Amino acid sequence: MALKLYGFVPSNATFRALVSLYEKDLDVEFVKVHMADREHKTPQFLSRNPFGQVPVLEDGDITIFESRAITQYVARAYADKGTDLMMNDPKKMAIQSVWMEVEAHQFNLPSHKLVIELYINVLHRGREADEALLAEFEPKLESVLDVYEKRLTESKYLGGDSFTLADLHHLPNVHYLMMTKVKKLFDARPHVSAWAADILSRPAWVKIVSMLRSEGFV
Amino acid sequence: MALKLYGFVPSNATFRALVSLYEKDLDVEFVKVHMADREHKTPQFLSRNPFGQVPVLEDGDITIFESRAITQYVARAYADKGTDLMMNDPKKMAIQSVWMEVEAHQFNLPSHKLVIELYINVLHRGREADEALLAEFEPKLESVLDVYEKRLTESKYLGGDSFTLADLHHLPNVHYLMMTKVKKLFDARPHVSAWAADILSRPAWVKIVSMLRSEGFV
Ligand SMILES: N[C@@H](CCC(=O)N[C@@H](CS)C(=O)NCC(=O)O)C(=O)O
Ligand SMILES: N[C@@H](CCC(=O)N[C@@H](CS)C(=O)NCC(=O)O)C(=O)O
Repeated sequence: MALKLYGFVPSNATFRALVSLYEKDLDVEFVKVHMADREHKTPQFLSRNPFGQVPVLEDGDITIFESRAITQYVARAYADKGTDLMMNDPKKMAIQSVWMEVEAHQFNLPSHKLVIELYINVLHRGREADEALLAEFEPKLESVLDVYEKRLTESKYLGGDSFTLADLHHLPNVHYLMMTKVKKLFDARPHVSAWAADILSRPAWVKIVSMLRSEGFV
Repeated sequence: MALKLYGFVPSNATFRALVSLYEKDLDVEFVKVHMADREHKTPQFLSRNPFGQVPVLEDGDITIFESRAITQYVARAYADKGTDLMMNDPKKMAIQSVWMEVEAHQFNLPSHKLVIELYINVLHRGREADEALLAEFEPKLESVLDVYEKRLTESKYLGGDSFTLADLHHLPNVHYLMMTKVKKLFDARPHVSAWAADILSRPAWVKIVSMLRSEGFV
């Protein structure tokens, strides 16, 4: 049974889920949800995700929403395919899980706010930047990146010695931030900037970038 | 080797971690961090958690921060003790993980904002409520509780048929919200209010409430 991922371009959360499927070399049917027509708020879509959001993964009789639940499902259910996205040793997994929580509870909010503002509103919609928002969230992102800079002197990836979900969950936000003036915060931190270049050049992510380009995004 | 949890009262995140240790009937030394003296920003504390936040768990040679990484570590490392906090079947675990992500990415933000405003600022500090903040976050919490009401007609707990981390992660915010006028949003939803009463009456949570009371909180 083919895997189906419901999503839209350039949704951050959609690409977080999709890149995990690509890392696992899985065949997936990408079903575009027409947000402009509010297809995500129809009863049919709400029966897949009651929050009316993308992405949603269908795998046979199982339906999963929330991008990070999808990636964890994919990593566990297809453990023997493609890239190993979870540490096998329980202690190493505990440390990986710390950095997955850091992404969700420290990195995501400032990054997401800055992506919406600088990538969507300024770059794509040509609006003026909201300086108050930047003044609030740039320093928050900086202090997270300071912690990452130190962490990445101790281990090659955030979750440990190899690329795992702890890194993968950052991909869409890092990609979009690198297209904005916030890139300077990465450039100023050598380990963070090497890590960003490394994860952005993974073939699974490069495939997503082609998809973005073909739809007119950078 | 005794487990050590660094935290403070009434920190939400501290209690999320502590209640998982109590559910597992584990002996734990609770080490109070003196936030007023900024002990959480000393080099010694920052070596435990570079974000300078509580809680932090030490278990022998392993140090874990981020409350939800601590609960997952406890659930896995002490799987054979106390309450089972994770579904054993992989498909059931996938569904539990959806609802853990829902707590983190849908429930937590509006709840946390309302707890800070109504429980800390209004109830404890006697300030006037910030009506703009309430107007923003009350409807967000309501729409999450609408989804929960439906979910709880299908299964007794959010993650499935039994109490798991998907419910436990809600405990501190639900407890504090029930002390505020936002309780009405729970009361208006019969399944949500039965679920809240159920999880709040678990012996592990009751033990935390005694600790809160003995420090002058409700
Ligand atoms: N926490 C969710 C966020 C999903 C999300 O915000 N999706 C957006 C697109 S990036 C969406 O569907 N928005 C429509 C809406 O919220 O109504 C996840 O990680 O999957
Ligand atoms: N996402 C973290 C949040 C931890 C957190 O915000 N802790 C607060 C107390 S509830 C704290 O230590 N605040 C001090 C600070 O941020 O400087 C977790 O779940 O552990």
